[in-house]
Amino acid sequence: MAFPINTYTKSAEAYSRALKVIPSGIYGHQGPAEGCFVPVSAFPFFSQRAKGSYFWDLDGNRFIDYMCAYGPNVLGYNDEEVDEAAAKQRTAADCVTAPHSIMIDFAELLTDTVASADWAFFAKNGGDVTTLAVITARAHTRRKKIVFFKGYYHGVAPWTQKMDYPGILEEDVANNIYVPWNDYEKLAEVFDENKGEIAAVISQPYLHGNFADNLLPAEGFWQKVRKLCDNAGALLIIDDVRAGFRLDLAGSDHHFGFKADLICFCKAIANGYNVSALCGAEFLRNTVSGLTYTGSYWLSAVPFAAGIACINKMKRLDLPRLLRERGEKLREGLLAAAKKHGRDLRVTGEPALFYLRIADDDSLMLHQRWIAEMVKRGIYLTNHHNHFINASLSDEDIKTTVEVADEAFGAL
Amino acid sequence: MAFPINTYTKSAEAYSRALKVIPSGIYGHQGPAEGCFVPVSAFPFFSQRAKGSYFWDLDGNRFIDYMCAYGPNVLGYNDEEVDEAAAKQRTAADCVTAPHSIMIDFAELLTDTVASADWAFFAKNGGDVTTLAVITARAHTRRKKIVFFKGYYHGVAPWTQKMDYPGILEEDVANNIYVPWNDYEKLAEVFDENKGEIAAVISQPYLHGNFADNLLPAEGFWQKVRKLCDNAGALLIIDDVRAGFRLDLAGSDHHFGFKADLICFCKAIANGYNVSALCGAEFLRNTVSGLTYTGSYWLSAVPFAAGIACINKMKRLDLPRLLRERGEKLREGLLAAAKKHGRDLRVTGEPALFYLRIADDDSLMLHQRWIAEMVKRGIYLTNHHNHFINASLSDEDIKTTVEVADEAFGAL
Repeated sequence: MAFPINTYTKSAEAYSRALKVIPSGIYGHQGPAEGCFVPVSAFPFFSQRAKGSYFWDLDGNRFIDYMCAYGPNVLGYNDEEVDEAAAKQRTAADCVTAPHSIMIDFAELLTDTVASADWAFFAKNGGDVTTLAVITARAHTRRKKIVFFKGYYHGVAPWTQKMDYPGILEEDVANNIYVPWNDYEKLAEVFDENKGEIAAVISQPYLHGNFADNLLPAEGFWQKVRKLCDNAGALLIIDDVRAGFRLDLAGSDHHFGFKADLICFCKAIANGYNVSALCGAEFLRNTVSGLTYTGSYWLSAVPFAAGIACINKMKRLDLPRLLRERGEKLREGLLAAAKKHGRDLRVTGEPALFYLRIADDDSLMLHQRWIAEMVKRGIYLTNHHNHFINASLSDEDIKTTVEVADEAFGAL
Repeated sequence: MAFPINTYTKSAEAYSRALKVIPSGIYGHQGPAEGCFVPVSAFPFFSQRAKGSYFWDLDGNRFIDYMCAYGPNVLGYNDEEVDEAAAKQRTAADCVTAPHSIMIDFAELLTDTVASADWAFFAKNGGDVTTLAVITARAHTRRKKIVFFKGYYHGVAPWTQKMDYPGILEEDVANNIYVPWNDYEKLAEVFDENKGEIAAVISQPYLHGNFADNLLPAEGFWQKVRKLCDNAGALLIIDDVRAGFRLDLAGSDHHFGFKADLICFCKAIANGYNVSALCGAEFLRNTVSGLTYTGSYWLSAVPFAAGIACINKMKRLDLPRLLRERGEKLREGLLAAAKKHGRDLRVTGEPALFYLRIADDDSLMLHQRWIAEMVKRGIYLTNHHNHFINASLSDEDIKTTVEVADEAFGAL
C-alpha cells in the first residue's frame, strides 16, 4: 500500500508572500529560529482548515496532527461543545471594562479541579504566568535566586532565556542556577551553597525538553525536592503549561504525588481559546494581590467560557486515561513498525506527550529523514519536540499512522 | 432632571465570591493594586453584557463606557462586522499547528497601513511586543541601556517595573535611565553621558500617564529626539499600545511627524480580539528573525480576521477624525458644565483619549467624589487614568454625559 506524497505548491507561494511582511516569514515553533528543523520541502507551512484530529494545508493535504498547535488542541480542533459555549458568551460580552462574572465561575471550577489551587489568576500566555510565579516567589521570600533544571522551557521572557541569546543581558539571568534533571544530590548541594538565597525551584513536572529523550522523575525525586524547598523556605513552582490536564486533571504535581506552591497552566486549559492561569496555595494569595500585573485582554470572557466547557468535557471524558490509552496504543504500533525495519525507535515521556527518536544515528539525520517521510504522507510530527495526543484521535487514525510509519521506515 | 442612582447589590455579592478564588477578587486596572481608586461603593465590578458604547453590570445598570475595556473597544462592543469576520474564520481554523494563511493577509494590511511598518510580528499582549522591541534593540545595537520618560507605562514585565515594587530586582531595572518628558536638554545630556551605551529610547507618542495631566510633545520635540537617536546609533521605539490607530491609522509617530524604528500595537488593533503586533523598519527584520520569541496562542487566526475587519472599518470610518470630533464635543460640554458650577476642570491629552482632573483640590479627593457621582449615574469614568472614545459613542450619549456631569457637579 503506497500513501500519496504531498506537494506544497500553494504553501510555498504563501511562504514567499509571508517572507515580505513577517520576519523570517513565520516564527515560533514553525520558524527557523526555534530550531526544530521544519524544512519547507517536507512540511506544510500554512493551514486553511482544521477539525478534530486533522488539519488541511493550503494545498488541500490532510494531516493527522500530532502537534495539536503545540499543545492547545486537546479535545480536537473546533470542538462543538467548547465553540458553542464560547459563541454564547460572545453574544453577551467578551473584553469589557468591568470583567464578566464568568471569570468567577472559571476560577471556582479551577480551584475545585486542581489540587494545589486555592486561587486562580488569569492571563494570556504560559510566559505571563511563569513570570508571575517567579515575581511572586521573589516578593514572598524577598530572595533573588531561582533554580532551573537543565533542558527547561518556561517561555521567552528574558529571565528564561540564555545569556548568549541575542538581546539578552547578563543581568536578565544573573540569579539563575541550573541543575541537572533528577539530580537530587546536586540540587541539595546548590541549596547548601545558597543558604537563605533561593526564592524558588521552577520545573516542568518531568523533563520534556527538545533534542533529547524525555525523562520522567526518578522514584521519590519530587517528594525529596518538596521537602528540600520546605526546609529552606523556598517555593516550588510547577510549569504545567505543556503537560497540564493531559496527565491528571488535578494537576501534574498531583499525578506525581506532591503539591506545588504555584502551578502554571496554559495550552490545554481552553482547547485553543487564548487564556492561561496561575494557580496557587492560600499562603501566597496576599502576595499576588499586592503585585502590579495586568494585560489588555486578560479579563476577556470568551476564553473563560471556553475554559469552563473544556474542563467539564475533559472531566466527562476522563481525558488523562483516554490520552494515555491512545498514546500507548500508538507507541506499540510505532515500535512494532520500527522493529520490522530493524530501527531502534525510542518513545519516551508520558504517552499523552510522547517524544520520538531513532537512536541508530547520533547525528539525528536519519530521524529527521524519517519524520519528513511521515509528514509528506500526511502524518504531522516534528523532529525534536514532544508530540501531543488529542481526544479526537481515533483508532483508525492510529492505524493509519502506524501503516504510514511502516512505509516511511521502508523509504529510508 | 434627576438621574437615578445605581445600586450594586449583585456586583457586591459577586465580588464576595470572587474574593475566595481570585487574589484580591479582581485584578488589573480594576483591582486595588493598580491604584486607580475604583471603590466598590461607586463602581460596578462585574458586567453581564456589552453592546456599542454601553455595558450593563450584574444589577442591570447601564453605563456609557468611557474606559472601553481600557482601550480595546474602539468601534463599539460586539461590532457586527468584526464579529462576523471572526466567526467565519473560526469555522475554518483558529489555533492550529501550521498557522492559517490569514496571518499573511493581516501582516500585509498592517504594513500597507502603518507608515513605519516594513514587517509585522504578532503576539498577545502589549507587553509581549514592548519586550520584543527592547530585546530587538539590544540585539541590534549590542548595547544595554534603555531610556524611558518618567510617567511611562510599557506593561508589567520586570524591566518595566520599579525597583521597589514587590518581587522586582535591581538587576531587572539596572540598565534603565529615566528622563523627564519633553526635556530634550536632559535627554541630550543623558546621551552624552552614556556614549555608545544606549540601545534605545522607548516612549508613548505623548505622555498619557496616570495621576497627572496628559502632556503632548513640545513643538519639534520628536524631530530632535529622532535626530539624537540617529546620531547616537540608538533605536527609537514607540509604544502605541494605548493611542495606536486612535490618532492616526498610519501610527502615532506619523501623527506627530516622525518615524519610529519599532512601533508597538495592541488595544485598538482588533476591537477586543486578543492580538498585539510589533511593526518595524526593514533594517531590523533580520535581527527579529534571529530572536527566540514565541507563545502558545500567538498564531491564532480568529484575532487576525478580527484585526483585518477592524482596520478596514476604521479606515472606512476615518476613525481618528471621528474620535477627535466626538472627543472635542464632549470636552466642550464637560468644560461648560464645570464652569457653570465654578469648578476648574482640566481636560488634557488628545481628545480621543482625554484625561480629566478637577484642579480645585490638589488632594484629588474632590475629583474622585465627582467621578463617583458620575459612575453612580451611569457614566463610566475612572479617577486617574485617561479615557477612551469609541466609534459607537453617539451625540445622544455625549448629551446625556454632559447632563449627568452637570448634576454630578451639583451633587459635590
